[in-house]
Amino acid sequence: MTKQIFERYLPLIEAEMQRVVGQGDGLYAGHYGMLRYHMGWADAQFRPAQVNSGKRIRPVVCLLACEAVGGSADDALPAAAAVELLHNFSLIHDDVEDDSPTRRHRPTVWALWGVPQAINAGDALFTLARIALHGLTRRPISPAVAMEACFVFDQACLRLTEGQYLDMSFEQRLDVTVEEYLAMIEGKTAALLSASIELGALIGGANPASRRHLADFGRYLGLAFQMQDDILGIWGDEAVTGKSAASDILARKKSLPVVYALNSAEVGAALRTRYAAPIPSADVPAVLALLDRAGAREYAGRAAAEAHGRALAALEASGVLDNANAAGQALLAIAEMLLGRQH
Amino acid sequence: MTKQIFERYLPLIEAEMQRVVGQGDGLYAGHYGMLRYHMGWADAQFRPAQVNSGKRIRPVVCLLACEAVGGSADDALPAAAAVELLHNFSLIHDDVEDDSPTRRHRPTVWALWGVPQAINAGDALFTLARIALHGLTRRPISPAVAMEACFVFDQACLRLTEGQYLDMSFEQRLDVTVEEYLAMIEGKTAALLSASIELGALIGGANPASRRHLADFGRYLGLAFQMQDDILGIWGDEAVTGKSAASDILARKKSLPVVYALNSAEVGAALRTRYAAPIPSADVPAVLALLDRAGAREYAGRAAAEAHGRALAALEASGVLDNANAAGQALLAIAEMLLGRQH
Repeated sequence: MTKQIFERYLPLIEAEMQRVVGQGDGLYAGHYGMLRYHMGWADAQFRPAQVNSGKRIRPVVCLLACEAVGGSADDALPAAAAVELLHNFSLIHDDVEDDSPTRRHRPTVWALWGVPQAINAGDALFTLARIALHGLTRRPISPAVAMEACFVFDQACLRLTEGQYLDMSFEQRLDVTVEEYLAMIEGKTAALLSASIELGALIGGANPASRRHLADFGRYLGLAFQMQDDILGIWGDEAVTGKSAASDILARKKSLPVVYALNSAEVGAALRTRYAAPIPSADVPAVLALLDRAGAREYAGRAAAEAHGRALAALEASGVLDNANAAGQALLAIAEMLLGRQH
Repeated sequence: MTKQIFERYLPLIEAEMQRVVGQGDGLYAGHYGMLRYHMGWADAQFRPAQVNSGKRIRPVVCLLACEAVGGSADDALPAAAAVELLHNFSLIHDDVEDDSPTRRHRPTVWALWGVPQAINAGDALFTLARIALHGLTRRPISPAVAMEACFVFDQACLRLTEGQYLDMSFEQRLDVTVEEYLAMIEGKTAALLSASIELGALIGGANPASRRHLADFGRYLGLAFQMQDDILGIWGDEAVTGKSAASDILARKKSLPVVYALNSAEVGAALRTRYAAPIPSADVPAVLALLDRAGAREYAGRAAAEAHGRALAALEASGVLDNANAAGQALLAIAEMLLGRQH
């Protein structure tokens, strides 16, 4: 089912984003070329290309939420383009901040054109994300609703920077609490997914209660997805995740199982000692044993299941699953795909 | 006259910006602390401070433009805060991109907290600039005008990134044309000053022609100011500019006199040879001699005077100088202060 949804919406979303980003004329060919490269529409010489450019989950759920509350998906297209461009802006800057030379099997923007141009290219994509929202003024949407959409969007941007701030500050710390971890993923993962769905609902004319429930659906879906990603980053099957097993341990990532175990009375001290210095591959089994003793996998699994349950309850409460609403069912199917990792 | 204007408006502008940026609670004290430090409201330990924080020209002309067309300055306060926060966001990222360790006699954000946090702090201030604009919805401004204000603002942001792209790409080039230089300062300097004034005019209810003339006034004022700054960067009196004489030559900056001379049939080749490698202090007189032979100072002076003249003509055409309009006269006084460098 989800395959058909993506096949239906993706061409519309790509076309809207390409229209907003544009080509850039002679003088700015390089500026906009970097953006088209990052979006997967161009190669490093700025020739047209089509490469793997991510799943485009956020814009798809934005359009579905709009249809699910009775709106027309076309009206939400500017917001769908905006959230996906915003997500991609954050990736350009994340790659600089994390010093990551590759993304989706290609060199990152900074690796090709240097850090200064990459920071500025990210700023341009951030700006274009907001410019995408102005497409709402060319739809049958009232200016007041368009302005409110800008507000929902801008608040999500701010949450994104807060989450990134916490994530980076965790790198130097061994005393991160579960509460701090949750605040971090609220900002870094949940806020934008929530805003994507809320924007669709707002533009589609949802009543306030339904809009709030749909925003909650996106939020809990984001939390559950991130927690599950954390579990897979330690115990995931390499053949399924595409990452090497225990990659998050080698990277000493402060993911949920690790944060939980760092705070455990039983193994906390021993784990802090391990995490105070680089972890050699040979020590991974010892770290896994500490996480086991703390019951970290079970804890994270329970937390993910609880968030998953809350997401589905919010989707139900929104009312979009009633009356055999196809878009509502599609939101449910995408949630199950994301959390079940079925492709 | 300009002193009284700044004394009247600055406290309002600072209060509005401080309200938008906020303090950040416990978890985010560091995130928002970096922003308050950069704005000059806090020291590096995030204790309240009041330090030199720039001239705040943009928000002042925004408020004046609003009053000059018959509006209330309070209505334009959200836009005034937005343009100044945007300017300050661009400085955080510029300092990273230019590898500048100090600004206004203090360490830059990246120098204190590292490049990754500085990039993210800039993103947060960029977002807060946009959030400042939402204050328009709490004023007697129609949502359609508020949305148009967002559009004017976002377009200026995009021009800013285009100008910055050109400026950085010039560093590796000796074949920059005067046309390319003009496009660069249009984006980097003129676009935001123009938008600042246009936003005030829009919010104040200017008619379309007056709004366009005021936008042009800001644009030409920005161009004239930058050209004059370029002249001072080479021939300025150290006691007046605060920069060491010929500092732009030592930095091999592609400012207007240099770009003009690089394209001169007579001295271009010799100057390109000089600019192909670092320029030792001892060689500055030889470079100055080449610029002299090309007539670069006179050319830049004529270009600055022409832009200055166009700025004043646009201000006059806007109609705000008629009827002894105090705010209109104040815009004129600020233009003369900026271009005459009277303090």
